[in-house]
Amino acid sequence: MRLSELSESSGVSTATIKYYLREGLLAPGRQVNATTAEYDETHLRRLRLVRAMIQVGRIPVTTVREVLGHVDDDSLGRTIRLGAALWALPHVAEPDEEDGHVRAAHHDVDQLLDTLGWSNAKSLITISPAYRSLVVAVATLRRLGYHWDDELLVSYAQLMHQAAILDLDFVETHPSEAEKVETAVLGAVLVEPMLQALHRLAQEEESARRYGFE
Amino acid sequence: MRLSELSESSGVSTATIKYYLREGLLAPGRQVNATTAEYDETHLRRLRLVRAMIQVGRIPVTTVREVLGHVDDDSLGRTIRLGAALWALPHVAEPDEEDGHVRAAHHDVDQLLDTLGWSNAKSLITISPAYRSLVVAVATLRRLGYHWDDELLVSYAQLMHQAAILDLDFVETHPSEAEKVETAVLGAVLVEPMLQALHRLAQEEESARRYGFE
Repeated sequence: MRLSELSESSGVSTATIKYYLREGLLAPGRQVNATTAEYDETHLRRLRLVRAMIQVGRIPVTTVREVLGHVDDDSLGRTIRLGAALWALPHVAEPDEEDGHVRAAHHDVDQLLDTLGWSNAKSLITISPAYRSLVVAVATLRRLGYHWDDELLVSYAQLMHQAAILDLDFVETHPSEAEKVETAVLGAVLVEPMLQALHRLAQEEESARRYGFE
Repeated sequence: MRLSELSESSGVSTATIKYYLREGLLAPGRQVNATTAEYDETHLRRLRLVRAMIQVGRIPVTTVREVLGHVDDDSLGRTIRLGAALWALPHVAEPDEEDGHVRAAHHDVDQLLDTLGWSNAKSLITISPAYRSLVVAVATLRRLGYHWDDELLVSYAQLMHQAAILDLDFVETHPSEAEKVETAVLGAVLVEPMLQALHRLAQEEESARRYGFE
């Protein structure tokens, strides 16, 4: 398809598409003559991915370029490729390892992983931003003086594991390795706000069931 | 306790506590003489709540004041009181009702609620920001050309309903109505980042289980 058709199919303006091409976020089309290039389904898919990261995920262009670099690096194994792309996405602040609450939170999280039997994630701990995010979240609870119930934390983790199983089952329905990795990145950008909205709506439903409106 | 002790117990500086007092986010202590006021456990609890909203939730002071107004309004029923406080928390952009994708998303979400049997939440739809957030999330998926699997959406919603049951069970372990409402607000601020971190860590664990590290 031509640039104008790519614009129409994607709902992205031709000016924005040209900007993405200049920034290297989208591969050039196949040049058919001096002024015309031809684009295909892979361009359309990539364009949607870029759009989702920039518009919904509010991810800076340089980070999008970095994420796409990992998405396209087929020399990496799948776990690393999925991980490398996700790890380039924005995360919360890094934990301050000098802080006593952070050290205690490391201990809490390590114990949680033992209880859960998440032994595979344990070997990722030294490099995983998700692990550090969890330490920050638990350290915040501690700093504010909340002693969270351990069993509650385990129950939340088990629910999120079920969500992760749904995520990966959905990723695996896609035929090519490239689509699998793209879907995983999209999931991180698009599914998280949806889960948050569903969670809040579920709280309203459950509250209304229990307490009514009186 | 004195102001200095309140500062020590909470880890919040006396200057910040005085600022919260001036802004009306914290009730004045009981004046024991011209220069000294006495604070108690309710001040400490409120201080932690304010701290969590401002530092973790990054909620503006005027919004914090509005949320606390609802938290303290015991003329309201519990569902409304929980809801009114949560609804004042920051939410995503409002849906643009002129947009075709938004209209289609309303239809999707209404159908989802029917499938789930969330009939109590339905009566909140006209006023619930969580409902509008979900419509925005689904409209975004549609705009980007993703046809999400209906069954997948139902499964995610059921997991989030289980999370909401855990939330409310935990809220109910608190003795007073004021603490129940405070815990619900805290949950919205503190539990959401923790669920997000657990979700990402679970994705890494599940990915490593399925694909190893090769």
